[in-house]
Formats: sequence, structure tokens, C-alpha cells
Amino acid sequence: MTRTELIQNIRDKESFLCVGLDTDIQKIPDQFKKEADPIFAFNKMVIEATSDFAVAYKPNLAFYESLGPKGWESLQRTMEIIPKNIFTIADAKRGDIGNTAEMYAKTFFEWLNFDSVTLSPYMGKDSVTPFLKYEDKWAIVLGITSNPGAVDFQFQPIANSSDLLFEKVIKHAISWDNSDRIMFVAGATRGETLAKARKAAPNQFFLVPGVGAQGGSLEDVWQHCKNPDIGLLVNSSRGIIYAGDEKAVHSAAEKLRNEMKALM
Amino acid sequence: MTRTELIQNIRDKESFLCVGLDTDIQKIPDQFKKEADPIFAFNKMVIEATSDFAVAYKPNLAFYESLGPKGWESLQRTMEIIPKNIFTIADAKRGDIGNTAEMYAKTFFEWLNFDSVTLSPYMGKDSVTPFLKYEDKWAIVLGITSNPGAVDFQFQPIANSSDLLFEKVIKHAISWDNSDRIMFVAGATRGETLAKARKAAPNQFFLVPGVGAQGGSLEDVWQHCKNPDIGLLVNSSRGIIYAGDEKAVHSAAEKLRNEMKALM
Repeated sequence: MTRTELIQNIRDKESFLCVGLDTDIQKIPDQFKKEADPIFAFNKMVIEATSDFAVAYKPNLAFYESLGPKGWESLQRTMEIIPKNIFTIADAKRGDIGNTAEMYAKTFFEWLNFDSVTLSPYMGKDSVTPFLKYEDKWAIVLGITSNPGAVDFQFQPIANSSDLLFEKVIKHAISWDNSDRIMFVAGATRGETLAKARKAAPNQFFLVPGVGAQGGSLEDVWQHCKNPDIGLLVNSSRGIIYAGDEKAVHSAAEKLRNEMKALM
Repeated sequence: MTRTELIQNIRDKESFLCVGLDTDIQKIPDQFKKEADPIFAFNKMVIEATSDFAVAYKPNLAFYESLGPKGWESLQRTMEIIPKNIFTIADAKRGDIGNTAEMYAKTFFEWLNFDSVTLSPYMGKDSVTPFLKYEDKWAIVLGITSNPGAVDFQFQPIANSSDLLFEKVIKHAISWDNSDRIMFVAGATRGETLAKARKAAPNQFFLVPGVGAQGGSLEDVWQHCKNPDIGLLVNSSRGIIYAGDEKAVHSAAEKLRNEMKALM
């Protein structure tokens, strides 16, 4: 998907909602467990209930991998029914050297036809650039995360610089060729941190892993991270997909979209 | 596998060789392509040809994932035929927050029964500790890598410290609970860098991704990284598995083992 298309979808739907398909076989309602492919059947319900409000879907690969080959089949089937005008994110957090990165890029961009994949930057440029060779596909690089362990390394101050590691990562990544195909994961409990991330990459889209709980408020995210193209995809997973029956899932997505719409 | 068992295997075989199962359907000899599961058939040949010399096998997950559900089946079958006294490494470089990390740990440690999995440290402690809860299982955390992009972030000097980021990562990780179950990936073109990694973690095992090409020499690795328990697993992938027919694969593994034996 191109940036122009993504922005248009956001404007049309008045939403920057990403629905996280963290589909856990232990947590889905019993009615789906009778189906031949329970994970797919549940995802189908979620997609039908939320596609009016979602501009992106983000399957978390861990949940599919944990089911073995069947999990990958469920993921493949899910990808086939996501409407083509909705952005897709493989939340895989891969990161490996060149030829291995190329293989991961093939898996997610060619075989599964995702629009984007999340990546860890620890191994540097050549672990990301193989993903940037694909036109209209995106690498979503971990910038700042909102988990407790984020402080361990992401917040390390870099010598002879006023940057923390996550700022260095973001600034460095946008210097790479085709960095217009990079987005960043930006989650934080403090608005100040999000503002630093935005300052480091004014134009890039940010994938915000969640609001509430460990994340900041939607208002904080909006205030510190929006840019002239909106520049945001805010994810919600459990709060939407496990809201209840199809009607409840629909309402949960609509509610969050309406909060977004009020800000836009 | 316990540390005692691993060390005993290394002493018994006079080898610290890890064979990388980076099995590429494009590169395996034609005879295997006729089999029902070509990847498994090829791996079976490699394992039979090298198990006298290898103390570890390391499937690179990217190669299996790129084949979809069938790739995971090939991986599962491969795991079933690796002799129980040989250490297994899922080279997956995962790294995600707590509940997702738990799911990855289940996949690799319970479902596939690997002894260890490689992890990226960017998200910090809570992305690694779920893997440390398993007795006799190991987290192999990226410390220093030998790819060109390693300089981008791993070599960043940390303010108010004499550490580069990779030293900070290694020193910090060994302060976590159950860090006796942590190994580190340590690859570098320069012996000096390997020596720094070893100084940061004197007791930990290091998985060295490769010697020759972008890596240092086996002698350099030995000189700068061995510890009283050997403390090393040195990987070779393409140089062994694509050496030729079964006899050639056997000889390639034996040759590298003999170089190791001469050092021990």
C-alpha cells in the first residue's frame, strides 16, 4: 500500500485504528472452537465486525507460530479475507543479517502478502534494508517501546550526543535509502518520550502499540505524535477482539474510532 | 540440556562445532527434491553425516518459515531425529514483550523442544526473562554480531561509561535472575571486540556465528573467547551442509572438528 492510499483510508474512515489480531486459542469463545479452523473463524468474525473502523490489522506472529503448521494456515487464510484497502502488519519483530532478512522479507511480503513487518534494529542497517527494496511495502522498526524493559537499552544515553539510544536508532534509520518506507514502533508511558521520537522522525508514520494500561492516553499520543498526514496507527488488541460477541466487538472498535475521530 | 552435559559432550567429541541447518530448497542437491519432504531428507543426510563431530545444530528459522506450513513440518521432523545428546538452537532472533515472549518460549521450548533460542535484546529484560524460566533451556542473546550493520548501534559508546552498547547489553543481561541460562551471540571480525565481549561475561557460553568470510579466524575466536569450560559453540552452515555428497559433508565437518581438537 502506498503512503497516499494509507492517508486517504485514514481520512475516509476518520480513524487511525489498528486492530491487533493476537488471537489466543485459549481465549476465543467456545462457539469458534467447534470450527475446522477456530483461529480463522474467530478472526473472520473480528474482521467483519471491525472493518468499518480499522485502517490496519496486525496479527501477532507468536500466537500463530505457537500452533505449529496449522497456525500458519490460519494466518494465511486470515490474510486472504482482509479487505485489500486495509493495511496489514506482520508483528514479527524479526532482525537478522542480509540473506536471512531477505528470506523473512519473502515470507511476509511475497508468500503472505503483508504490507509491512515489524523489525528489531539491533543488528543495524543490513538487517532492515532487504525489506526496503519492495515498493509499496513497509519496514516498521522498533523505536521506543512501552514495556518495563524499554529502559534497559532504549533509554541509554549515547556518548558525545544528546540522544538516547532510541533517538539514535530513529535518526539513523531515516538516513538509509528508501527510508520513506520505514515506520517506527513508538510506545511510551510518557508523552515527553513520544515527543522526542516524533522530533527524531517528523514525517514517518508511527505504530503505537497500545493506549491505556502500559501505554499513554490516546490524547497524549495524538498531542505528541500526530503530524500533518496524521502519521499514526494506534493499535488495540484485547480490548477489541475479546470484547464479547460480534456486536460487542463492533461497538468496542467503533468507540475507539469515535475517540480518534473527535481528535482529528 | 544442562551446562554440565554440554561441556561433557564438548570434551567427549573434542569439538565445539555447531552445524547451521540453513537449508535452502534452491541449494539442495536434486536427489533430495524428489523426496516427499526434501528439506527433511536433506537435513537427515546432514545430521547423519555430521553427528560424530557436531555438539550443536542450529536451524535458521527464516529458511523454514519461507516455505509456509510445510516448512514448519520439515523443522518438526528434523528436531525429532537430532540425537538427544546434541544441543539444539532455534535461530529465530525473537524479541517481544512479556506475554508474547512467553508464547514464543512455548513454541520453541515446548512444542519444538529446542534447547535454546536466539533473542534480540532491544526490548530489554522482560523480553528475555520468560525464556529463562525453563530449567535446562537457554536464551542466546545477541551481543555482538559480525555483519556490517553491527557498527550502527552495537558499537555506540554509552555516555558516562567506557562501554559500547554491546558490552552494556552483555553486562546488564548477566545481572538478571537465572542468567546462568543465558548465552550470547558473539561474532566479530576483530579479536579485540571478541575479547571485550568475553571480559563482559567471563563464564557464559558464546555462540560464534561463523568463522572465515565476515567472521574472525578460528584461532582468533579461541584465543579471545575460550574460558575454562571451553565456553564456545562455533557455527558453520554453508561450508558444511553444501560441501557436496554425504561423504563430502562428513569430511567438511570432520576437518573443522579437527581444527578445533588441535586447539583444545
